[in-house]
Amino acid sequence: MSALHTVNNAHRRALGPIATPDRLLLGPGPSNAHPTVLQALSRNPIGHLDPLYVELMGEVQELLRYAWQTDNRLTIPMSGTGSAAMEAALANTLEPGDKVLIAVKGYFGLRLADMAGRYRADVVTIERPWGEAFTLEEIEAALREHRPAILGMVHAETSTGILQPMEGVGELCRQYGCLLLLDTVTSLGAVPVHLDDWQVDLAYSCSQKGLSCPPGLGPFTMGPRAEAKMEARRGKVPNWYLDVTLLNQYWGTDRVYHHTAPVNMNFGMREALRLLAEEGLEHAWARHRRNAESLWAGLEALGLELHAPEHLRLPTLTTVRIPEGVDGKAFTLHLLNKHGIEVGGGLGALAGKVWRIGLMGYNSRAENVELLLELFRTELPAFRPGAQTGRPAAVAV
Amino acid sequence: MSALHTVNNAHRRALGPIATPDRLLLGPGPSNAHPTVLQALSRNPIGHLDPLYVELMGEVQELLRYAWQTDNRLTIPMSGTGSAAMEAALANTLEPGDKVLIAVKGYFGLRLADMAGRYRADVVTIERPWGEAFTLEEIEAALREHRPAILGMVHAETSTGILQPMEGVGELCRQYGCLLLLDTVTSLGAVPVHLDDWQVDLAYSCSQKGLSCPPGLGPFTMGPRAEAKMEARRGKVPNWYLDVTLLNQYWGTDRVYHHTAPVNMNFGMREALRLLAEEGLEHAWARHRRNAESLWAGLEALGLELHAPEHLRLPTLTTVRIPEGVDGKAFTLHLLNKHGIEVGGGLGALAGKVWRIGLMGYNSRAENVELLLELFRTELPAFRPGAQTGRPAAVAV
Repeated sequence: MSALHTVNNAHRRALGPIATPDRLLLGPGPSNAHPTVLQALSRNPIGHLDPLYVELMGEVQELLRYAWQTDNRLTIPMSGTGSAAMEAALANTLEPGDKVLIAVKGYFGLRLADMAGRYRADVVTIERPWGEAFTLEEIEAALREHRPAILGMVHAETSTGILQPMEGVGELCRQYGCLLLLDTVTSLGAVPVHLDDWQVDLAYSCSQKGLSCPPGLGPFTMGPRAEAKMEARRGKVPNWYLDVTLLNQYWGTDRVYHHTAPVNMNFGMREALRLLAEEGLEHAWARHRRNAESLWAGLEALGLELHAPEHLRLPTLTTVRIPEGVDGKAFTLHLLNKHGIEVGGGLGALAGKVWRIGLMGYNSRAENVELLLELFRTELPAFRPGAQTGRPAAVAV
Repeated sequence: MSALHTVNNAHRRALGPIATPDRLLLGPGPSNAHPTVLQALSRNPIGHLDPLYVELMGEVQELLRYAWQTDNRLTIPMSGTGSAAMEAALANTLEPGDKVLIAVKGYFGLRLADMAGRYRADVVTIERPWGEAFTLEEIEAALREHRPAILGMVHAETSTGILQPMEGVGELCRQYGCLLLLDTVTSLGAVPVHLDDWQVDLAYSCSQKGLSCPPGLGPFTMGPRAEAKMEARRGKVPNWYLDVTLLNQYWGTDRVYHHTAPVNMNFGMREALRLLAEEGLEHAWARHRRNAESLWAGLEALGLELHAPEHLRLPTLTTVRIPEGVDGKAFTLHLLNKHGIEVGGGLGALAGKVWRIGLMGYNSRAENVELLLELFRTELPAFRPGAQTGRPAAVAV
């Protein structure tokens, strides 16, 4: 068959079947997926050009419009994670030399600025400390000074737990003739998002937070003004995989083959969005707020300090300051290895300073809040300075 | 909660649970996934920085090295489909103005050329008709004339059913100082591939063909010479999501967060690769060839003509010429709607001229060959010109 070469078994490993444990994922994401979403994932795949798949694509698009509260025609899940959808928002609209203004108040704002630079945009940033939001005055001053083609900002900053107020931002962008790009990775399906009312032109999200699906798809939407900018490009989109002018021919009425869709992930996404529509956005939003408020009250009752001021606090992701002298990493490893519960650490400027607790999608439930508060109450004391006895034995990772 | 805006229910649809049928996918892909791969997909996700996930990443990398027969350190599944991995191979290594030579003998060669242009390479192509392969002489002549930095070619052309002979190509590339990039989308796990023996510097594949996993991941590998070219870049990789210099920090020993990995798809990939290692490459390759040879003999016995000459015929994907006067699309729709079997049509220059039959991974089984041959024998005649009676009633799509 291949007489010239023999098979090298150096990298052949005899493994047992996969045996990952059931974790409770209360970190910054992924969050646990809904059980029926996991069932949907394990269905037999069908072809990406099968008439039944084409029908499913339409359902996913329509329910994404509902989740985002938008009429945008170009609303599709990108075949990659949320970061791919973030890149799609920039890659399709930016042309070399375009001025783009990024409002940075955490890790994901920095990522937007990094990505925009790779598309040869003239990137300018305004910054707020990690744990604050921008005021309309700050935004207007920057728009007036820089006159960008696009303003990019993060609605729900997963690195800080801050929810950026959006009222009035879209109007300012119209007034200054720029597109508004909004990261809704940690808000879609869980926190009020009104894309069209807010006059947002470009947005993206992920599958594994408010939508209760595993990671792997990046919902993406583009309004008419952004579409016009894309259509007026002088050259091809400098990213083939994320090129919306090509994807539009597959997701639109032509159904022209672009790439083989991640069919099973879209089965999961369809089920996740179906569950969200069944619950109703108002109920999902209220549930996330109610459970987050219980968590906040419980943590404060234990004497812990929340990093985000209450009026800017994100219901999906809570940043808790690690008390003086506590080894934050040791405590999260203890929760993971002893109790199978994942809680996140800080990122970037908040590394080592906060824990990040997520209550997202399927995981935003009262029982999870109670369980976690009980563990903070009973097991954190052993990690405080001076605690010598009663500290649970470390479990090897 | 959001008193300024009310929820618009225009796009809220009340859907029933997902109810896709069990298809037998004998087209160009996706192919059916192995049942235990589907089970793995539906496991509860774990965190992408969880020590157990990090361990699983290492297993996936190692088994990919086995499948490709390479020692390449940088061997990872890209978090997108095969097309994303194709783009990664170009995006990380090409710099503006680099000369790249693409050997085009089908649709996917054209795609490589399109992608390379988006990274501002100086793209030159050599072409063969759709159904032929390149000789070493043709390749050497083009290398001598163009002196490219990279030669890109497709090992197994899914659009034509042609297997490109690889003996001697790598040596020529070394001689002319260029990197060799090879598309193994329709060969990995199913057809002999010896990346290191062949001196291939860059390769990629997909999850949904020879590996028996649903679509959604794009295996990618890069050898030391390609790595050196990437490291000598003057600027950042112009694609953030696929930037191997960043991904290397996550998949390497540092485990620095890049993007949230598609955890469940990687569960599936780990199981798919585990099954391949259990079977052994030699057995998997022999099985694909044996079943393909049965299919070829059976189709020819029915008087059908195969598009690819026997010595270049791809075991995973067989192109069958649609007989004069037969409506090829009507027959494939009949197979899909009446029998739940997907067979593909032609792409590009072969649109309307061939059917494409895939026997890949889990689907490369004698029973599938027999079933399909029986349907061609009994039901194709009704689609031939002049057949008036006995044609099965059309089923609405």
